[in-house]
Amino acid sequence: MTKVKKHTWRSKLHEIIYEADTPLGKIFDVVLLILILLSVILVMLESVKSIDLEYHKVLYIGEWIITVFFTLEYILRIITVKKPFRYIFSFYGIIDFISTIPLYLSYIFLGTSYLLTVRAFRLLRIFRILKITRYVGEANKLKTALKHSRPKILIFLFTVLIIAIIAGTLMYLIEGEESGFTSIPRSIYWAIVTLTTVGYGDIAPAGPLGQFIAAILMIMGYGIIAVPTGIVSAEYAMDKEDTVHTNTQVCSNCNEKAHDDKAKYCHSCSEVLNYLDL
Amino acid sequence: MTKVKKHTWRSKLHEIIYEADTPLGKIFDVVLLILILLSVILVMLESVKSIDLEYHKVLYIGEWIITVFFTLEYILRIITVKKPFRYIFSFYGIIDFISTIPLYLSYIFLGTSYLLTVRAFRLLRIFRILKITRYVGEANKLKTALKHSRPKILIFLFTVLIIAIIAGTLMYLIEGEESGFTSIPRSIYWAIVTLTTVGYGDIAPAGPLGQFIAAILMIMGYGIIAVPTGIVSAEYAMDKEDTVHTNTQVCSNCNEKAHDDKAKYCHSCSEVLNYLDL
Amino acid sequence: MTKVKKHTWRSKLHEIIYEADTPLGKIFDVVLLILILLSVILVMLESVKSIDLEYHKVLYIGEWIITVFFTLEYILRIITVKKPFRYIFSFYGIIDFISTIPLYLSYIFLGTSYLLTVRAFRLLRIFRILKITRYVGEANKLKTALKHSRPKILIFLFTVLIIAIIAGTLMYLIEGEESGFTSIPRSIYWAIVTLTTVGYGDIAPAGPLGQFIAAILMIMGYGIIAVPTGIVSAEYAMDKEDTVHTNTQVCSNCNEKAHDDKAKYCHSCSEVLNYLDL
Amino acid sequence: MTKVKKHTWRSKLHEIIYEADTPLGKIFDVVLLILILLSVILVMLESVKSIDLEYHKVLYIGEWIITVFFTLEYILRIITVKKPFRYIFSFYGIIDFISTIPLYLSYIFLGTSYLLTVRAFRLLRIFRILKITRYVGEANKLKTALKHSRPKILIFLFTVLIIAIIAGTLMYLIEGEESGFTSIPRSIYWAIVTLTTVGYGDIAPAGPLGQFIAAILMIMGYGIIAVPTGIVSAEYAMDKEDTVHTNTQVCSNCNEKAHDDKAKYCHSCSEVLNYLDL
Repeated sequence: MTKVKKHTWRSKLHEIIYEADTPLGKIFDVVLLILILLSVILVMLESVKSIDLEYHKVLYIGEWIITVFFTLEYILRIITVKKPFRYIFSFYGIIDFISTIPLYLSYIFLGTSYLLTVRAFRLLRIFRILKITRYVGEANKLKTALKHSRPKILIFLFTVLIIAIIAGTLMYLIEGEESGFTSIPRSIYWAIVTLTTVGYGDIAPAGPLGQFIAAILMIMGYGIIAVPTGIVSAEYAMDKEDTVHTNTQVCSNCNEKAHDDKAKYCHSCSEVLNYLDL
Repeated sequence: MTKVKKHTWRSKLHEIIYEADTPLGKIFDVVLLILILLSVILVMLESVKSIDLEYHKVLYIGEWIITVFFTLEYILRIITVKKPFRYIFSFYGIIDFISTIPLYLSYIFLGTSYLLTVRAFRLLRIFRILKITRYVGEANKLKTALKHSRPKILIFLFTVLIIAIIAGTLMYLIEGEESGFTSIPRSIYWAIVTLTTVGYGDIAPAGPLGQFIAAILMIMGYGIIAVPTGIVSAEYAMDKEDTVHTNTQVCSNCNEKAHDDKAKYCHSCSEVLNYLDL
Repeated sequence: MTKVKKHTWRSKLHEIIYEADTPLGKIFDVVLLILILLSVILVMLESVKSIDLEYHKVLYIGEWIITVFFTLEYILRIITVKKPFRYIFSFYGIIDFISTIPLYLSYIFLGTSYLLTVRAFRLLRIFRILKITRYVGEANKLKTALKHSRPKILIFLFTVLIIAIIAGTLMYLIEGEESGFTSIPRSIYWAIVTLTTVGYGDIAPAGPLGQFIAAILMIMGYGIIAVPTGIVSAEYAMDKEDTVHTNTQVCSNCNEKAHDDKAKYCHSCSEVLNYLDL
Repeated sequence: MTKVKKHTWRSKLHEIIYEADTPLGKIFDVVLLILILLSVILVMLESVKSIDLEYHKVLYIGEWIITVFFTLEYILRIITVKKPFRYIFSFYGIIDFISTIPLYLSYIFLGTSYLLTVRAFRLLRIFRILKITRYVGEANKLKTALKHSRPKILIFLFTVLIIAIIAGTLMYLIEGEESGFTSIPRSIYWAIVTLTTVGYGDIAPAGPLGQFIAAILMIMGYGIIAVPTGIVSAEYAMDKEDTVHTNTQVCSNCNEKAHDDKAKYCHSCSEVLNYLDL
């Protein structure tokens, strides 16, 4: 009992930041979501020259406000978790770090002549969009479906690659440089463009033999698309009866998720889960 | 009984306009269908310059005849329903209004110089095509299937968008302006064109690194297409035993649909359904 | 018994031409298949200028030999069937007629100046390829699967068309003539090219608003493709236990097909089926 | 027993080369995999002019080292199998031969002027990628699924081809040479590009009638894609309970695979399977 009282403010903050069961927790999440979207829109607008020329200052200030907020969020997340390193090196920990650092880095390198590096760092901010995935619960289902059918997906990718390599080499030999097949890697790029039915048309066969092979490749691609569909359909048919965890309880000690709805203690480290209820 | 007699002409009209059980109701519906199709064809032909130059007068007169008929239909629909506002602000009420008003509006604004506005209003007539959906009963099944799988579809759209945003930003950084990647929004547009396997070719990567990332994006798009297919397949497999309502009974009091085939009274407000049978 | 003896040669020919149970019948079918393929290849080669210039005479003679054979086949088919008109106006009767007549017609119109008509008639010969479908038994399964899901397919087509019409009109309004959206029908053509993920790139949106709407249309098309797949998957799952008729018995009296493997008399008109066995 | 002792070194080598149960066998396989990938990368890099100019010598030496290793592997595979001809004329035997011979052949023909032949032979090395399929066990499942649904796939291909032939001929007649429809084979190529939703845009209809037929073709292609998907989905649904053989035992006498995990003797010729265990 004494253990619980000792870190009340930290556990309260943990509940607000990591969970969405309390009104404050919900407000925090909504504010964060809006800021993420705003931030992504800012990055996009900045890249449009005509907009950047006119509203450069507004975009810059907006960017700093968002960065300061994300910095605070990152620090609070580290403080309120009991095992900070576990969070720092987790997927979301890294994303949170990448979301915060770009502006500082671009500030440091601003004096130097590595303009491209600065630009690259600033664009890193787009990865903030991945912070949103934190709020998409059912994505887990998709993730497990993908995990289950990983061997099948790998074989599918592997088959696609082998067909693309062989078809690309054949076309390199047949079509030659006039039609755009200047090297084997470029021909393989064309084969993937064709096999996936994208078909840019930047490289296209000109001779009858090349067109014949291209036609075969297209029909193969048109048929092969059935394979991933069949895999996912079968996977979905199996997973239909699975249930989704609706609570957002996250253990403040070990970051374990997916607790039972009625759970009071973490099923992984026996830490108390709901301090605010006590 | 007196209640029924009092509004015989209105209820008869209601049966003709809103339903298709009586011979007159069927004739009304067929005439309406033909007029809708004619109207849509007129709008299309008008936009073809060579045709508009030669047959402008014919198209104009035809348009007025159809508009007058639709105006009458709209007024009759309001009169014969007991709760007109419920109809006016329903989906089909709004569509019916939009289908009727454009010509009048374009007539009002004709004197002014807002030519583009007039053109836009006239093109609104194309939405008449949506009036046809009234006659497609089984579409409801598709609608419920979509409603059931809404969370899955949202996650799918969300995933597609996140991939497009990140891939677009990467390509903006790598490819630069020469290949057409002039801003992040434009690069995201390219990423969507590629991911959905449309592949216009108006923007296409030129460098080897850009082509490599494009190839990965294509294969992702080629595989991700399996997700909506899997969802719909699973949904269809579940909905197979569902039945479709074949009668066209619509309550003249509350506009409630989907009555049982043998129903004599509205299951929602107990209004008599078939006045003509009495 | 006398009835059977009377038309022995006709029933024997019927067995050879319409069926494939006897050695002669099999040879007849194989010869016909080869001639159909040869004929289609001839039509194709004739259209390639460089080949036509050099081998015109060879192609011309080959064409006449094939036409004479098809003429004989057509006459024999009419003679050996008891109800010739039933055959003449059946699907394959019409195809057989169209496969035979072009060369004669082109010979008749040769003197006239309607060169395009002659060319069109000659190209009609390509429809001979449909004669091949006679030999593809399992296609029936696909046909019944399509028949069962006809209402769903119609709604799907209908939805695609409505989306294409509305999107096309919107783009005609937004993009204007510079980007290729010169009329509504042309814009609808673009919308179909985009929605079906074909994406030629001959017409492509240039402005940001147009590209935004195009992106939405692409994602819709990318998702809607799931609908026909779901329909066919469900249909196939149901039809899995169905069996296919493997014999080629066709009644010489009423052209009825799909007889039981052990049937000796037509299940529709009681005609004797296997004269050669008697 | 004496029989086993007599060829110990050969059976040991057989176990190392053909199987992956022993540590040495695993190392052999990993080395081979790396060499195959290296070799394919070498072929690709060689085709890129800028790289070939600078690193020609390095690529050439690397190529010879790999070829010598593959030559040794090929010879050892022949020696250690009891029925060498069975291996030589098997799928992997031919692939192994094709993977080894190109460099020697290009060396022989180097003096001659048949430069294209030399280039073609050198590019044959790309087929080494097929050697990798040896290590992909689950591909067998895909193979059997394809074998089961072969008749359906053939009908599908057949339907696609007939539609492409008829649509191509029609477009050749309608569009003419200005839009790129210069011959029927070329028009059929266009029809396949359109039907499979690839859509390069190198050939595209210009007239309204051509665009109308193209739109129909697109919607057909968009719908027909459902057929292979339906087939594969049904096939996967059936094959779900099938198990995969995980051991890599290959009989040294008759090359028979897919032995039971606990098998000690070949189920096809009773040869002892695991010499190293004895």
